[in-house]
Amino acid sequence: MARPSRGRRPGGPDTRADVLAAARQSFAEKGFRGTTIRAVAAQAGVDPSLVHHYFGTKDTLFVAAMELPVDPREVLLPVIDGPVDRVAERFLGAFLGVWDDPALQPALLTVVRSALEPGGDRLFSEGFLPVIVQPIGVALGLDRPEHRMPLLASQVLGLILMRYVLRVEPIASMSPALLIATYAPTLQRYLTGELP
Amino acid sequence: MARPSRGRRPGGPDTRADVLAAARQSFAEKGFRGTTIRAVAAQAGVDPSLVHHYFGTKDTLFVAAMELPVDPREVLLPVIDGPVDRVAERFLGAFLGVWDDPALQPALLTVVRSALEPGGDRLFSEGFLPVIVQPIGVALGLDRPEHRMPLLASQVLGLILMRYVLRVEPIASMSPALLIATYAPTLQRYLTGELP
Repeated sequence: MARPSRGRRPGGPDTRADVLAAARQSFAEKGFRGTTIRAVAAQAGVDPSLVHHYFGTKDTLFVAAMELPVDPREVLLPVIDGPVDRVAERFLGAFLGVWDDPALQPALLTVVRSALEPGGDRLFSEGFLPVIVQPIGVALGLDRPEHRMPLLASQVLGLILMRYVLRVEPIASMSPALLIATYAPTLQRYLTGELP
Repeated sequence: MARPSRGRRPGGPDTRADVLAAARQSFAEKGFRGTTIRAVAAQAGVDPSLVHHYFGTKDTLFVAAMELPVDPREVLLPVIDGPVDRVAERFLGAFLGVWDDPALQPALLTVVRSALEPGGDRLFSEGFLPVIVQPIGVALGLDRPEHRMPLLASQVLGLILMRYVLRVEPIASMSPALLIATYAPTLQRYLTGELP
């Protein structure tokens, strides 16, 4: 439902914020697939071309709407380069570099908590997973990335909860090097190992 | 702070409920270690001996206060019997038997959600982990159970979130047999394998 215009100049600073607010509401209520640029634009009272101008694709609009402190696609891009049989180590290094950063962690925790709230499941399974996680598996040339990446996500999510949300020892205090040595074999098997 | 008595007979049916309510409040506010049978009894306005009579130890009071639909110690006890090099399979079988049960799942999800709420971290790390999870590792005779059991918990928690909370495919629909074959090697390594 279009909101009546409030007479501001199109493209002003609050236009971008309005588009993001409309996008967040739509992603939360209708999921990623049920959200269209056109509907977000109508909700924000702007022309769809303006949404495209600001955010390009629905993927980028989704990442912006999640208000992540970093774009996970940029963090994870370097992980793809290098030998695929060591990709789990590189992934964990990049992951811990972001999550262990005290400047980024509070915002990341907010995102995780909201994904675990009722309704957050659709944002995760229809948004975060296909937009951010699956493309890594495709770029790595994995076989069955749609099967393997959720397995990786299941261990990474559990690690996030134990280290950052529940702060369970010894995981909360383990060094990045020890965490990488501990979890890389698990993640490497999920990504490239023999699976049933 | 003791609540004024409401003139009910000691040991009546609402006494047990009052003790449980006082225990839940104390565990949530003061954590597992900060909670004493004596303080719970005072809060409920009953004699400590009555709390012991109903619940025995603080461990059992904690399990009762969590309102789990099953006592995880009873579910996991049979897991301990049998060869330790196949314990991960038995654990996953018992775990999925409970979690996949539609009669039990809603109550289990409530427990997980409350553990992830602010303050729930202490209940998990000071209560659930030492009372329910660690004793399994000790009973299995693992070396460094206090290091290994949280690793196991990190994968099991992630599996719970992906399969039951976020309902991410293919994990949400995988058969128990396929889940066991997929996750048993991970859990077996955390329990008995070489670790850094």
